[in-house]
Amino acid sequence: MAPSEARLVRFTETGPASVLTIVTEPVEDPREGEVRLRVEAIGLNRAEVMFREGAYLEQPPLPSKIGYEAAGTIDAVGKNVDDFKIGDRVSTIPAFSMGQYGVYGERPVVPAAAVAKYPEKLSPREGTAIWMQYITAYGALIGIGRLSKGQSVIITAASSSVGIAAIQIAKNIGALVIATTRGASKAQMLLDAGADHVVQTDTENLEDRVSEITEGAGAHVIFDPIGGPILDQLAAAAAPGAQIIEYGALDSRPTPFPLFAALGKGLTIRGYTLFEITHDPDLLAKAKAFIYQGLETGDLVPLLDRTFAFDDVRQAHEYMESNQQFGKITLTLDGS
Amino acid sequence: MAPSEARLVRFTETGPASVLTIVTEPVEDPREGEVRLRVEAIGLNRAEVMFREGAYLEQPPLPSKIGYEAAGTIDAVGKNVDDFKIGDRVSTIPAFSMGQYGVYGERPVVPAAAVAKYPEKLSPREGTAIWMQYITAYGALIGIGRLSKGQSVIITAASSSVGIAAIQIAKNIGALVIATTRGASKAQMLLDAGADHVVQTDTENLEDRVSEITEGAGAHVIFDPIGGPILDQLAAAAAPGAQIIEYGALDSRPTPFPLFAALGKGLTIRGYTLFEITHDPDLLAKAKAFIYQGLETGDLVPLLDRTFAFDDVRQAHEYMESNQQFGKITLTLDGS
Repeated sequence: MAPSEARLVRFTETGPASVLTIVTEPVEDPREGEVRLRVEAIGLNRAEVMFREGAYLEQPPLPSKIGYEAAGTIDAVGKNVDDFKIGDRVSTIPAFSMGQYGVYGERPVVPAAAVAKYPEKLSPREGTAIWMQYITAYGALIGIGRLSKGQSVIITAASSSVGIAAIQIAKNIGALVIATTRGASKAQMLLDAGADHVVQTDTENLEDRVSEITEGAGAHVIFDPIGGPILDQLAAAAAPGAQIIEYGALDSRPTPFPLFAALGKGLTIRGYTLFEITHDPDLLAKAKAFIYQGLETGDLVPLLDRTFAFDDVRQAHEYMESNQQFGKITLTLDGS
Repeated sequence: MAPSEARLVRFTETGPASVLTIVTEPVEDPREGEVRLRVEAIGLNRAEVMFREGAYLEQPPLPSKIGYEAAGTIDAVGKNVDDFKIGDRVSTIPAFSMGQYGVYGERPVVPAAAVAKYPEKLSPREGTAIWMQYITAYGALIGIGRLSKGQSVIITAASSSVGIAAIQIAKNIGALVIATTRGASKAQMLLDAGADHVVQTDTENLEDRVSEITEGAGAHVIFDPIGGPILDQLAAAAAPGAQIIEYGALDSRPTPFPLFAALGKGLTIRGYTLFEITHDPDLLAKAKAFIYQGLETGDLVPLLDRTFAFDDVRQAHEYMESNQQFGKITLTLDGS
């Protein structure tokens, strides 16, 4: 039976990790179409850092909840929920507003449409490292980019969980994967994760390296969460007719539109978030089928980085901001 | 019989209209796959102003020829040209380098693949006002934008020949056409040309007006040759999932990439030139069929602005740069 109170993370002002506060509040009952989780692990995303800072697509309604990805078991089910029952082992799909449903907590309530079972062979921590990363990468590389065997793809900020997911999906398709990272520290890990080539952007010229790797052809698909001045370099490294898919704003500087490269090469630059998929039941069903199959065959393998206790959520955010991680940072809850 | 010498326009340095010089040179014979024209009229394009300034996609090989569009009759045919004979009434399709084949002249030689017959009912001046404008607009609105009946389209710099062509094509599809122009002087002409609404960007807020016109939905397709800071406004006026097709660089200021609008609305921003079509025989054949049919039915009607004598090519360029025109500016040659 659920306790009457549970802990969750709230913040009352935007700012650094120190604004995150653990509070104890009465446990809510799920309403129609909702379920409640007993959370075992929480996966961190860069989106949550940006949301906390007030720099995300959605502004937090202060005080605000936070969090997109949690794994646990269902401990209460609202009306008109047919697909789940108490005890089901699920993790959350980012298909909701964090301000409304943020899952950094012990007993969050979420829409039933935003949870899915995950394979038995995966741990709860691994269960939090599936939906955001693989849906985002799948929708971009396959849905929009239509990446195909033999094409070249540039994956920037490749050591993030979405970046690693994109490497796995692109290799599965049979594409040539060029991963970028700033320094030398993660280069070998990216090669181990499946990248064919790694470009260290702090010391190497991206356009020259891509030209060399692709024998002058350039990259057909580019998948970038950084934005800012790097977009000019990405356009220079793109093949004629290439698609550049922008899915984040890690660089807070203005992003230039590479007009002459776009005109000369017929480039498409597409803003994208996974909500295009998670808010469309048909697209989401296709994405889930693809991901379940990849997890089953072992083509998709969630990679985990450090885990922190729930109480150490601030340190976990600071660690994410330090960019030392390779794979998913998680929080582990008591008793899981 | 062709004269041994003929006049043509050359320039030996990039710069203002005064760099254009009429010279007399020996008439060339067409080589394999080429034809020679006896030119009756020349159509001016903004691309030529930018080429003259050194601000176009292609840099002029100084000294350089110039010019994309001429109409006249074929007066010599090279080897292996099966589709044309001497006396055929044709105009040129921009499918070549201006530096190599520029058609501002009395007897230019051009690739046979870059000429096409034009309907008998059109004058030579009208013959120069078909291919650039309708291929550009067709490829963007139909080929890329997939504009459909009931959708809204924003056409910026709408009083240019490509802008007017786009209005005609969009109305033919059954789209709602929002044309933009800077001041009041051309607003009525744009309505007369078929625009459903005109926004005067010097005095009206584009986002607000488009929101009002589309009842909050925004525009589905945006067709813009300006670039620069207007791209932010266009992104703000765009519907979720909209395509913004950039096909020029009239504004020489840097173009910002509207990253947050693109992420939030899933916008696609596409660099485009008509060369994607004119360099692809299959796409070009489809475009020509569409345009011939529209000219036949009267859905497409080339609009002419002032004409100048060939000797007054500099004044014609200056007039284009003054932005007073509405429709195609032409040069008319002696005896035509």
